[in-house]
Amino acid sequence: MSAPPYEGETYAVVTAFVDELVRSDIAGAVVSPGSRSTPVALALARRDDVRLFVHPDERSAAYFALGLAKATGRPAVVLCTSGTAAANYLPAVAEAQTGRVPLVVLTADRPPELRDVAAAQTIDQVRLFAGHAKWSVDLPPPAPLEAVARQARVVADRAVALAAAAPQGPVHVNVPVREPLVPMPQAAPPGTGGAAWQGRGGAGPYARIARPPVQVSPAAARGAAAELAGPRGLVVLGPEAADGPDRQRTRARAAVALAARLGWPVVADVLSAARGLPGVIGRADALVRDPLVADALVPARVLRLGAPPTSKALGQLLERVPEDGLWLVDDGDAFPDPSLRARTVVHADAAAWLAAVAAALPAPGGAGADAWLRRWQLADAAAGEALAACLADEPYGCEGRVMAELGRVLPAGACLFVGNSMPVRDADAFFAARGRGVRVVGSRGASGIDGITSTALGLAAGSGRPCVLAVGDLSFYHDLNGLIAAGRFGVPLTVVVVNNDGGGIFSFLPQARHGEQFERLWGTPLGLDFAHAARLYGASFARPRDWPGFAAAVRSGLRRRALAIVEVRALDRTENVRRHDAAFAAVAGAVRRAWASDGGSGA
Amino acid sequence: MSAPPYEGETYAVVTAFVDELVRSDIAGAVVSPGSRSTPVALALARRDDVRLFVHPDERSAAYFALGLAKATGRPAVVLCTSGTAAANYLPAVAEAQTGRVPLVVLTADRPPELRDVAAAQTIDQVRLFAGHAKWSVDLPPPAPLEAVARQARVVADRAVALAAAAPQGPVHVNVPVREPLVPMPQAAPPGTGGAAWQGRGGAGPYARIARPPVQVSPAAARGAAAELAGPRGLVVLGPEAADGPDRQRTRARAAVALAARLGWPVVADVLSAARGLPGVIGRADALVRDPLVADALVPARVLRLGAPPTSKALGQLLERVPEDGLWLVDDGDAFPDPSLRARTVVHADAAAWLAAVAAALPAPGGAGADAWLRRWQLADAAAGEALAACLADEPYGCEGRVMAELGRVLPAGACLFVGNSMPVRDADAFFAARGRGVRVVGSRGASGIDGITSTALGLAAGSGRPCVLAVGDLSFYHDLNGLIAAGRFGVPLTVVVVNNDGGGIFSFLPQARHGEQFERLWGTPLGLDFAHAARLYGASFARPRDWPGFAAAVRSGLRRRALAIVEVRALDRTENVRRHDAAFAAVAGAVRRAWASDGGSGA
Repeated sequence: MSAPPYEGETYAVVTAFVDELVRSDIAGAVVSPGSRSTPVALALARRDDVRLFVHPDERSAAYFALGLAKATGRPAVVLCTSGTAAANYLPAVAEAQTGRVPLVVLTADRPPELRDVAAAQTIDQVRLFAGHAKWSVDLPPPAPLEAVARQARVVADRAVALAAAAPQGPVHVNVPVREPLVPMPQAAPPGTGGAAWQGRGGAGPYARIARPPVQVSPAAARGAAAELAGPRGLVVLGPEAADGPDRQRTRARAAVALAARLGWPVVADVLSAARGLPGVIGRADALVRDPLVADALVPARVLRLGAPPTSKALGQLLERVPEDGLWLVDDGDAFPDPSLRARTVVHADAAAWLAAVAAALPAPGGAGADAWLRRWQLADAAAGEALAACLADEPYGCEGRVMAELGRVLPAGACLFVGNSMPVRDADAFFAARGRGVRVVGSRGASGIDGITSTALGLAAGSGRPCVLAVGDLSFYHDLNGLIAAGRFGVPLTVVVVNNDGGGIFSFLPQARHGEQFERLWGTPLGLDFAHAARLYGASFARPRDWPGFAAAVRSGLRRRALAIVEVRALDRTENVRRHDAAFAAVAGAVRRAWASDGGSGA
Repeated sequence: MSAPPYEGETYAVVTAFVDELVRSDIAGAVVSPGSRSTPVALALARRDDVRLFVHPDERSAAYFALGLAKATGRPAVVLCTSGTAAANYLPAVAEAQTGRVPLVVLTADRPPELRDVAAAQTIDQVRLFAGHAKWSVDLPPPAPLEAVARQARVVADRAVALAAAAPQGPVHVNVPVREPLVPMPQAAPPGTGGAAWQGRGGAGPYARIARPPVQVSPAAARGAAAELAGPRGLVVLGPEAADGPDRQRTRARAAVALAARLGWPVVADVLSAARGLPGVIGRADALVRDPLVADALVPARVLRLGAPPTSKALGQLLERVPEDGLWLVDDGDAFPDPSLRARTVVHADAAAWLAAVAAALPAPGGAGADAWLRRWQLADAAAGEALAACLADEPYGCEGRVMAELGRVLPAGACLFVGNSMPVRDADAFFAARGRGVRVVGSRGASGIDGITSTALGLAAGSGRPCVLAVGDLSFYHDLNGLIAAGRFGVPLTVVVVNNDGGGIFSFLPQARHGEQFERLWGTPLGLDFAHAARLYGASFARPRDWPGFAAAVRSGLRRRALAIVEVRALDRTENVRRHDAAFAAVAGAVRRAWASDGGSGA
C-alpha cells in the first residue's frame, strides 16, 4: 500500500485502523449513515477490497452483518455514529454472543472532553454492550503519536482475531473522533512513514495473532473413549455455532464417525450440518412425542454437541438419561445445558476431540449395538413415511406442510433461513431435503423474533446462494425495515411469511387457556396486509391459494433473483395445533407397527 | 382491595408488584407480547385502573412509553419478555436518561438457575442497561416468603418514585419468573393475608417515598443575586426536562420573572415552555447567524437552564461570553455544557432557585438595562417580520416554510412533536404560534433519529391533545413500525414527513463537499414511496402540491382523528441550503435597519 496523503491526525489514525481491518479476513462492512462516524465510513468507502453495505437502520444493519458472518464464518464489521444509533446494536450483539457469531462492532463516539456534558448525540458508549461483547475497547482520541497509530492497528488485528476465535462472538471498538470530521490535507508530521502509519509491506496484518490447531492427547482421548463407550448411547447434534459451513461440516462428519465407532445413532437438529447425512436420525422430534415410543428410545448415555436441541420433546427425552450419562462438548467454556443434568462437559475443539476419541475406539461391532441402532433407524424411517403421508393430505395453510413443501422445492445448494418461534420448530419436525445439500440456518443464540429478515438478507449476500426465509408474521413485522437491504444491495431473497395473524406459538402453550386475555396479550393479531409492505420495498408479492400455487410462487421468487414475498395464510391456530397432534399420533402408530413387524425391536 | 385468589407464588408476588405500580401515579403501561412475561402482563391486564397498550415491537414500544411520560411528566411502565426483546429497549432507555424522562422498565427474565446455561430466549439481563438506568434491581425469584412480597411492593414504590424524582429518568427492574407461567389456583400458604401480600388498605402505596419541596436559603439567594446582576445579561432557556407541562410552565415563568428583575432578555428554545411567552426572544437562531448582528448581541453574563440550546448559532454566541460569565442551573447533578466554559453550575430545583434569586433582587430599572433589552427586542421583532416576509415568498417544498405554515395551522392547545436532525432546527428558527398555547416537544436527550414516530404517538395518547409530528424521511423510515400503534390504540396523529430523500442535514455539513462518496454514505436516498406505508398502517395519505394544499391536508388530518400522513417533497437539498441562507441574510438586513432607525441601538 502506498502512503496515503496525510489528512490530519484523525484521518491518519482511522485510516490505519480501517486498513488493518481490511487486511484481516472480514466478511464485509455494514455502515449506517451519521456524522460522527464520517472518518471511519470514508476510510472504508475508499477501499475497493471490502464489501460495503450502507444500511439506514442500525438495528437491522447489525443483524444484516450477523447474517454475513453466519454465511461465511468470518467476522463482519458494523459501524454507526454516536448516541442511540449504537444502542440499536444491542439486540444483534446479544444474539451474536449467545449464538457465537463473529462481529466487529464499531461505534463512533465523541472524544472524552465531549462526554457527559450534554453534547448532542452522546450517550455513555464505553463498554456499551457490557458482558454481551467478548471484548470492549475504547480507542484513544486521534493524536499524531506513533503509539496511537500502533494501537489502532493492533486493536483492529486483535478485534478480528478475537471475534473469529472459538467460541466466536462480538467485539466492540468504541472510536472517539475529534473534529474536523472530513479530511484536511496538511503537512505530515515527522515519523508518519513507518509501519505504524502505513502498515506492514504486502497484504499481511501489522500483528499476526495466531491460534494454532491443537490435538487432544491420546491418553485423554483413550480415557474419554473408555468412559463413554457402552450400549444404548446417542450422539445428539444441536444447532451449530456460526463458524462457517466448512468447519460445521467437518464437525458433523467427525460426530458421525465417532458414533459409528460407538455403534450409536446420531440425532441431528435441523440447524446442525449433520441433518441429511446418511444414516442420521432426522425425525427425533416427531418420534419421541409419543410416551410409549419415547420409553423405548431413552438412551443410557448421550454425547451432545452444539446448542440445546430445538425440539422440546427431544430435550425432555434427554432429561431421562441416567445421572452420569450426559456428556457435552463445547468449543468454548460454557455449560449449555438448561436441565443442569450434564455430568461431564468437555471444553475442547469439538472436531479435534471427536476425531481423537474415535481413533481411540475399536472398529464397531456387537449385536446389542445393532439392535439399538436398528430400533432408531426403523423408527426414523417409519416416521418419515408417516409424516410424508400425513402431510400430503394436509389442507392448504397447514404450517407443517409449508416446511415439507419447501423441502421439495428448494434447489440443490440453496439456503433456508428459519425464523424463531414456530418456523424453526416446524422445520425441525417437518423439513427434509435429503441429498440435495440444502443448508438450514437459524438464530438460536437468544432465539429472538427480532432481526430475522435482516439476518436472512445478510446470509443471502454473504453466501451468494439461492435463499429462502421462512418466518412468522409477528417476526416479519418486527424487522420490516430490514427489507430495504434487498433493493439497496441487490440481494435476492424469497420470504415465505407464514401468517397466522399473530403469535401462533402461544396456541401451543398454557396461555391459550386464558381466552379472555389471550388475544389481547399473546394472540397479537397484527391486521397488516403485507402486500403493501411488498410495494413499499419493491418486492413481488404472492398469496397462493393451494399447494401447487405455493410451490410455483416460491420457484418464481427464486428465479426472480430479487426480493419476493410469498404469504401463506395459515390455518386457524386451534386447527393448526390439532393437525400437528394428528401427525404426531400417526407417527407413533407407524413406529409401533414397524417395530412389531421387525419382531418387537422396540420392546 | 379484596384478597385475590392465591394462584401460586409467582402470581402472588407479581400481583403484589403490579398492584403497587398501579397504586403509584403512572402514566400507563406498554406491554410487548411474550411468554416469560406472562405473569406480569396478566397481572397488568387484570387491572382496569391502568392504561394498557400492547405493542408488538419492543423498540417502538419503549419510545411510545417515552412519549406517554413526556406528555404527563409521570413515569410510564414498559414490559417485555426475556432475551433480545429487552435489548431492544436500550435506545429509548438511553434517550430517557439523557433526556430525563421517567420510565419504569420491566424485563421478564429466567430465574437464576436458568441463566448462562443456554436456555432459550435468555441473555444476561442483570444491569442490562448499565449506567443508562438511574437504578437497576434484580427481583428475587418468586417464593412464598413475606419478605419477598414486601420487597416486590417496596421495589415498585421505589422504582416509580426514583423515576419521577429530579432529574427524572429510567429505572430497570428485572423480574425473574419461574414456571408455571399461568395462574395455578391452589391453597394459600399461611401468612399471605397481610399488607405485604394484599397491600395497605385504601388506595395508598405500601411505602410512601416522599421528597418534600425545598427552599433555597435567602442568604444563598442573595449571594447569587449579587453575583449575577449586571448589565448585558441574558437568560437562556434550552429544551425542557420531561417533568410535565405544569412544572415546565412554572419553571419558564420563574425564569421570565427573574429576567425581568435583572432587566435581561429571555431567549427561549423552541423546546422550552417559555417560547411564546410575552417579551421572550424567539428568533435568536436567525438573529445571531450574522456576524455583525451577533457582535452587538454578545452578552456579558448568561444564566442558562435546561439542555444546551438547539440552535448551533446561539451556542456559538454563548461561547463568546467572558470567562466567569456563564451560569447554569441544573435540576440534577450534571454539567450540561459541551463548551466546558461554565464557571458556575447550580445544582438545585430550578423553579425554587429562580424564585428565590428573583426575590433577592430589587425591582427592575435603569437606562442601561433598557437599552440592552430594547436592542434584543427590536432585533427579535425585525427578525420575525423579515422571516415572515421571506417565508411567504418561499416556493413549495421549502423546509423552513413548512414550520411557518404549521405555526398558522395548528389549533390552540395542540402539540407539535419535532424530529431531530432538520425538523427541530427548522422549528427553532421558523416556527411561531404565539398566544395559542401550542406545546412543542422533541427528544433532545441523545437527539437520535430513532423512535421519533413512536414517541409522538405516545405523546398523543398521553396528552389527549391534537398532535402533529414533523419528521424527516430518514427518521420516519427508521420507526415505520411505530405507526402500528395508531390503529391498535386508536391514537390520532398527523405526521408531516419532510421528504428530502435522505439525510438532508448533511447538506449543511462539510461532508457535502465530498461529492464522490456523499450520496453513498450520507445522502442516503431511500427511494421509498410512503403511500404504501400509509396503506400498510391504515393511514390517510396526502402529497400536496402547494402551500394551500399543505394547510388543507394538515387540517384534514387533524379533523380525521386518526393516523394521517402528509408528505412534503422538499426542495432539492442544495437549494434548501441556499434558501435558508437567503432568509438569514434578510433577517440580518432587517435587524440592522431596525437598529439604525432606532438611533443605533445596536451600536
